[in-house]
Amino acid sequence: MPAHQEWVENNNQYAATFGEKGELPLAPAKKLAIVTCMDARINVYAELGINEGDSHIIRNAGGCAKDALRSIIISQRLLGTREIAVFHHTDCGMLTFNTPQLRKLVKDSDPSNPALNAVDEIDFLEFNQLEQSVKDDVTYLKENPLVLAETTVTGWVYEVGTGKIRQVV
Amino acid sequence: MPAHQEWVENNNQYAATFGEKGELPLAPAKKLAIVTCMDARINVYAELGINEGDSHIIRNAGGCAKDALRSIIISQRLLGTREIAVFHHTDCGMLTFNTPQLRKLVKDSDPSNPALNAVDEIDFLEFNQLEQSVKDDVTYLKENPLVLAETTVTGWVYEVGTGKIRQVV
Repeated sequence: MPAHQEWVENNNQYAATFGEKGELPLAPAKKLAIVTCMDARINVYAELGINEGDSHIIRNAGGCAKDALRSIIISQRLLGTREIAVFHHTDCGMLTFNTPQLRKLVKDSDPSNPALNAVDEIDFLEFNQLEQSVKDDVTYLKENPLVLAETTVTGWVYEVGTGKIRQVV
Repeated sequence: MPAHQEWVENNNQYAATFGEKGELPLAPAKKLAIVTCMDARINVYAELGINEGDSHIIRNAGGCAKDALRSIIISQRLLGTREIAVFHHTDCGMLTFNTPQLRKLVKDSDPSNPALNAVDEIDFLEFNQLEQSVKDDVTYLKENPLVLAETTVTGWVYEVGTGKIRQVV
């Protein structure tokens, strides 16, 4: 059974007690954007005590700031956020491969298909060292001219084995 | 006070009752990747009854599939997911502007700074019609050679005013 068949019933329960959340405004109340990994073990709301309406949540493979730039510009310029928190996490898949390996894996999956060469255009943004990757992403955001200069930018590690966070920068 | 000072205490409470979640594997149990918007009103776990470990969650401005491609390839090729659900939502910021307007807004914020011309390289991926944008993103994923052919792809709308979801495609 596809996973999506399960969540229609779950959603009925959520909507039944939705209440005043339906009145929340478009702009995040805490003027905050969180960037974190797509990893299935990360429940941002529960982990940080965030509520609906508080913060933009940008998630991609690794929680890579560069991949989040389009969203961050929209978040800041159109929706008023002024703080960014970047979270990377222990046991991240981004620590387990590099871009040339993944490009080869994709192309080798069907060598007769030239359309797969499109993967050579993609930088998968992997990293080798967890804490350094957080520092690098914070530096990237602080130095990027398209990110507002007055932005508060912090960097964090989330430990998937314990549920704990720690600030890196 | 920056928002991040609040969540350290919240996280202590989360970690204190973390329990067996610390043993969850890297690969998503439901072989699922959800693509949705960064919007602050969207609590994916609560809305769909998703639990830690179930699904990759990819979030960006709009829930745009094109912007999620890097993450989707990693999700499928390295971590075994075989289903993608794309959610866009009512009252989305992506319905309120277009790329030329936002580029101009950024450049006009400091006309003396040529570094802001970098914004001309960014396609902000806005859309005009909500349901059509979901259909377009599902088509994009189904037709993209870098997405595995056997993938189940569905498209949904989330109503921020009611908490309800509905399937579009």
